[in-house]
Amino acid sequence: MSINRADFVETNYFTFAHPPDSFALECGRSLSPVTLAYETYGRLNNERSNAILVCHALSGDAHAASYHRGDTDPGWWDVMIGPGKAFDTDRFFVICANVIGGCKGSTGPPSINQVTGNPYALDFPVITIGDMVNAQRHLLDYLGIERLFSVVGGSMGGMQVLQWVSAYPERVLSAIPIATALKHSPQQIAFNEVARQSIMVDPDWRRGNYYDHGQPNKGLSVARMIGHITYMSEPSMEAKFSRKLKNGGYSFSFNEDFEVEGYLLYRGGNFVKRFDANSYLYITKAMDYLDLSGDFFIPEKQRVDTRFLVISFTSDWLYPSTQSRDIIKLLKNRKINATYCELKSTWGHDAFLVEVEEETRLIRNFLRSITTISSPPHRYPSTGAQLENEVSWAANGQS
Amino acid sequence: MSINRADFVETNYFTFAHPPDSFALECGRSLSPVTLAYETYGRLNNERSNAILVCHALSGDAHAASYHRGDTDPGWWDVMIGPGKAFDTDRFFVICANVIGGCKGSTGPPSINQVTGNPYALDFPVITIGDMVNAQRHLLDYLGIERLFSVVGGSMGGMQVLQWVSAYPERVLSAIPIATALKHSPQQIAFNEVARQSIMVDPDWRRGNYYDHGQPNKGLSVARMIGHITYMSEPSMEAKFSRKLKNGGYSFSFNEDFEVEGYLLYRGGNFVKRFDANSYLYITKAMDYLDLSGDFFIPEKQRVDTRFLVISFTSDWLYPSTQSRDIIKLLKNRKINATYCELKSTWGHDAFLVEVEEETRLIRNFLRSITTISSPPHRYPSTGAQLENEVSWAANGQS
Repeated sequence: MSINRADFVETNYFTFAHPPDSFALECGRSLSPVTLAYETYGRLNNERSNAILVCHALSGDAHAASYHRGDTDPGWWDVMIGPGKAFDTDRFFVICANVIGGCKGSTGPPSINQVTGNPYALDFPVITIGDMVNAQRHLLDYLGIERLFSVVGGSMGGMQVLQWVSAYPERVLSAIPIATALKHSPQQIAFNEVARQSIMVDPDWRRGNYYDHGQPNKGLSVARMIGHITYMSEPSMEAKFSRKLKNGGYSFSFNEDFEVEGYLLYRGGNFVKRFDANSYLYITKAMDYLDLSGDFFIPEKQRVDTRFLVISFTSDWLYPSTQSRDIIKLLKNRKINATYCELKSTWGHDAFLVEVEEETRLIRNFLRSITTISSPPHRYPSTGAQLENEVSWAANGQS
Repeated sequence: MSINRADFVETNYFTFAHPPDSFALECGRSLSPVTLAYETYGRLNNERSNAILVCHALSGDAHAASYHRGDTDPGWWDVMIGPGKAFDTDRFFVICANVIGGCKGSTGPPSINQVTGNPYALDFPVITIGDMVNAQRHLLDYLGIERLFSVVGGSMGGMQVLQWVSAYPERVLSAIPIATALKHSPQQIAFNEVARQSIMVDPDWRRGNYYDHGQPNKGLSVARMIGHITYMSEPSMEAKFSRKLKNGGYSFSFNEDFEVEGYLLYRGGNFVKRFDANSYLYITKAMDYLDLSGDFFIPEKQRVDTRFLVISFTSDWLYPSTQSRDIIKLLKNRKINATYCELKSTWGHDAFLVEVEEETRLIRNFLRSITTISSPPHRYPSTGAQLENEVSWAANGQS
């Protein structure tokens, strides 16, 4: 695959809820102003009907694809987004925004509180997945996109996908939640809580007020190490590390002996350079709070025309397939059109970032099926030209 | 079940390798002197043939059964050890010793180094499961027990069981490794390494020299919380906690919201009162170092008459059944008599402490089968009286 670096991408910033306006949050508090960092790939068509929103996971950001000028690595889902890829930017207008509460350009705990002139730190209100999605809705309004062709994401990104349909079903033509859940199990909450504790017991955390001192790198690094264990699987770790030693023999010390130890330390050490410890607290809390089970998802009587493709992976033990089957059960109960696919993979939770070929095949076919099967809803009459275009996609579209 | 508290138990202390002698360790260093804290239950028969060694897990100690005077809680495996129980103290002489490297009376990092007059701290040599077993062998020599009727243990206790047979097959008539492994997988190493890191990044750790200051409670607490997640299972956490809230609603803060969070914090906070952080480092390292796979277990030509009962639990994802099947495969390859039983349980790794009824049935029958089926090895001729006794056990022994 040749990479065309001729077209670099830049991050954009959209600010709303300027004073005296404010953005109301589910906790009862509000924020003002709110900035979202976002990127777009491809072009919005005249009908504004080809927009796909990509939602990122816990440690992701708005830079989902292509290259920033001067960078050697592309965005975090570049394998899936681009010309001819699963999210084909020759056809679709792809948007990705950093979540509020994040630390990658959107308003979050490290942002300056305009009232005090200092970083919010723990004065930042505890946000929810619902708040993240509401902020994205403001961005779509700004971009003039009334309805998304699709919304997609893995892990916490998938939670946002579910929340999008729960909050704004009429604005989402199709939805692709991957390796995710309607709500965290106690085990998922437990892993997040231990990660939060490892940050909060680091004296450098200073109850969140570390921005003048340097952040709690040690605690955040441990939190990330815990995360990495849960993102991998026993088979993927066995394949990658087995019991290989770094230096051929045991050190008989507490230095790292095994390659897996070195890997975790390296990943933990790298993470603290690019992520804010308070953001880690806020985002994990938002994940833990989400509960879209039962009537929390959509009131029983409400009609939902959104079509779903739900994907999980066999070796993902952090978001196991049972949780995706729970999503499917709920959708079927609500008579919502949904397809489920459990992909075989040894990559654990990381599979949604890695199993590109299978995901591409599934998603490409699903997106094609949307255009041909879905009747245009009455609120958004399709033009003849658009419909023709949709049919031609299907005709060309056998991979 | 009525508890007879008339007979309290006391911990005994056995010290060997007095200077100028010393106890040679696998790392090449040595210790002098070495103390083992141990307890015994039941009576050693005249033939000294009814001894069962119980090996404890990571955070266990010598107090496996009965009550210390004034205590309201019995030893950690009291449900399994006592008159009429799986390890029937009317018949067997049960021994349990705190491992070296521990902090419950045996020589370990908090012990006074008699050369310096200060606690060893990180001057304590890195010990192995082999060293733990060699120290126990000194205790058996002191007690005059040439051959164990059985050696049993779960988790790290099971590792010691396997090491016992590997090092001293002629001294072990039967062996019961439970919920254990021949070697740690990279995932098991990873969880241990993150636990060690959480201790070592706590500034109160002071590179191990904290005995004058108070130990790194915060880091040790996080380590224990990680452990607890791995000891439970998703179903057992769901049954115990689900998403139950401590205070009926979300706090929108970083205080604990969910009962599972409160539980982990409580268990972590309790643990630091009873366990030494350096011991946690040493013992987890010993577990990670063990590798009894292939020829490491026993040289191919060596004959082993020890009979095995290997037990695992369906929901144990920390020491999954595949690892017990690996033990069985190795034993069968070596033509060692072995029975394997995977017990259904929702309790995860904790099952070996909890699934008393099934374990009791299995172990009782196994111990009875030993006495009737095993021919007395030539090195340890059985008396007629002893043999009669053994046969009568089998005759009485249908549960």
